[in-house]
Amino acid sequence: MIIIGEKINSTNRAARAAIANLDTEFVQDMARKQYDAGAAYIDLNAGMFVDDEAEKLEWLVKTAQQAVDAPLSIDSPNSEAIDRALKAAKIKKPIINSITDERERFDSILPLILEYDTAVVALCMDDSGMPETADERLSIADRLISSLTSKRVGISDIYIDPMVRPIGTGTHYGRVALETISRVRAEFPEVHITCGLSNISFGIPERKLMNQAFLVAAMAAGMDGAILDPLDKKLMSFVYATEALLGMDDFCMDYLMKFREGLLEE
Amino acid sequence: MIIIGEKINSTNRAARAAIANLDTEFVQDMARKQYDAGAAYIDLNAGMFVDDEAEKLEWLVKTAQQAVDAPLSIDSPNSEAIDRALKAAKIKKPIINSITDERERFDSILPLILEYDTAVVALCMDDSGMPETADERLSIADRLISSLTSKRVGISDIYIDPMVRPIGTGTHYGRVALETISRVRAEFPEVHITCGLSNISFGIPERKLMNQAFLVAAMAAGMDGAILDPLDKKLMSFVYATEALLGMDDFCMDYLMKFREGLLEE
Repeated sequence: MIIIGEKINSTNRAARAAIANLDTEFVQDMARKQYDAGAAYIDLNAGMFVDDEAEKLEWLVKTAQQAVDAPLSIDSPNSEAIDRALKAAKIKKPIINSITDERERFDSILPLILEYDTAVVALCMDDSGMPETADERLSIADRLISSLTSKRVGISDIYIDPMVRPIGTGTHYGRVALETISRVRAEFPEVHITCGLSNISFGIPERKLMNQAFLVAAMAAGMDGAILDPLDKKLMSFVYATEALLGMDDFCMDYLMKFREGLLEE
Repeated sequence: MIIIGEKINSTNRAARAAIANLDTEFVQDMARKQYDAGAAYIDLNAGMFVDDEAEKLEWLVKTAQQAVDAPLSIDSPNSEAIDRALKAAKIKKPIINSITDERERFDSILPLILEYDTAVVALCMDDSGMPETADERLSIADRLISSLTSKRVGISDIYIDPMVRPIGTGTHYGRVALETISRVRAEFPEVHITCGLSNISFGIPERKLMNQAFLVAAMAAGMDGAILDPLDKKLMSFVYATEALLGMDDFCMDYLMKFREGLLEE
């Protein structure tokens, strides 16, 4: 599983305060902890700073990369902010989080993917808004993959995000997400599939329980990445258990190692 | 989910002692607790009593049905013991756990299903032993369903068990079980699918974690029953969460009710 560590995000109160105060220690500590816990990318989001997002995002990049060697996930829909962040990024192959099939957003972000040779999270969403069905999501994924690869973005640099909606607002949204994942996996074996895991449980109690169940079901459907909190030991335990369950871990060797390291939680 | 409560089983040390001592209180208390926790069937197993299994199983039936109205799961491969247990069973539609496609076992148990109008767990296993692949399991499931329905056993009285083998003994066994479940579900929409959940984790640490992951993945693949410990609050929390996730619980109403009753555990 390719984990994108979600903790340095301005929508989170503590992270927002740290970014506002240019708190280097907070950012570097959080980057290091997530990296040590298995994050492949460290997500950086300064979107709550409407007036100086670009400046704050650039600062986050410079600060985080002093602490860890992990590639960064530049989390913004704003091409100017992304550009400035990527200019500062030294670790190879960062990921842009995210592009969509909205015309303006696609056209403004595509050049940055090509210029900086990045990977990209591609959300199943277009100018007609948030899709309702798995069919619509699949058409958008199809168009995004075609458009990106026709511009020479490598298929394995694309992370399709099915756009998970809360099951509390629609009984079918869990099935829709899982069906989208398994159909994208079947049609495009080489593409990565990721999602913002916790969207599924928005508005219902015991969110961690639901996020754990969704993680397992989505991995079983073919998802091979996730934007999540790698410091959540129980959630990461499910990542390791599900990898072993799905035959990705020969004789459970990695699972057993995590157990010996005290990283599994029942 | 159709839960078969597994706690009254002679392979369990406490249950074995209780059965040996004809401890009515233990059996009735365990039957009641499992029923209250949501078990649809109460499994009864006296298989460790080699010399008087039939007598012990009959006593279990008589004892358990004084405490609960749930149908019983008669857990034995021994037609004589099953016959005696079913004669004593008063609550309608018990389930025989289990038949296989082994010729002798099939021929000795089929008449009991018909005579007593029971449901039946049908294990994907035949005279050539434990199948290795999903293909072999599917052929056996197919033969079992054909043989049973041709004798007028209702398809929805059949609970196909894919025969889960421990992932610690073979990296692919998780995938094999999940693939068997999803293919049986696709070919036979009306049949029930169940399994002994905890086999998956035999021999590895943090078994509960792996059992939870397997439960979620198997439900997502189409399993609608399980032989498990309904007193395991965390495991049952995953049953409710996964039902909501898979769209079986309108607007999470049941999930929210379980939450209010204090039955969900993160």
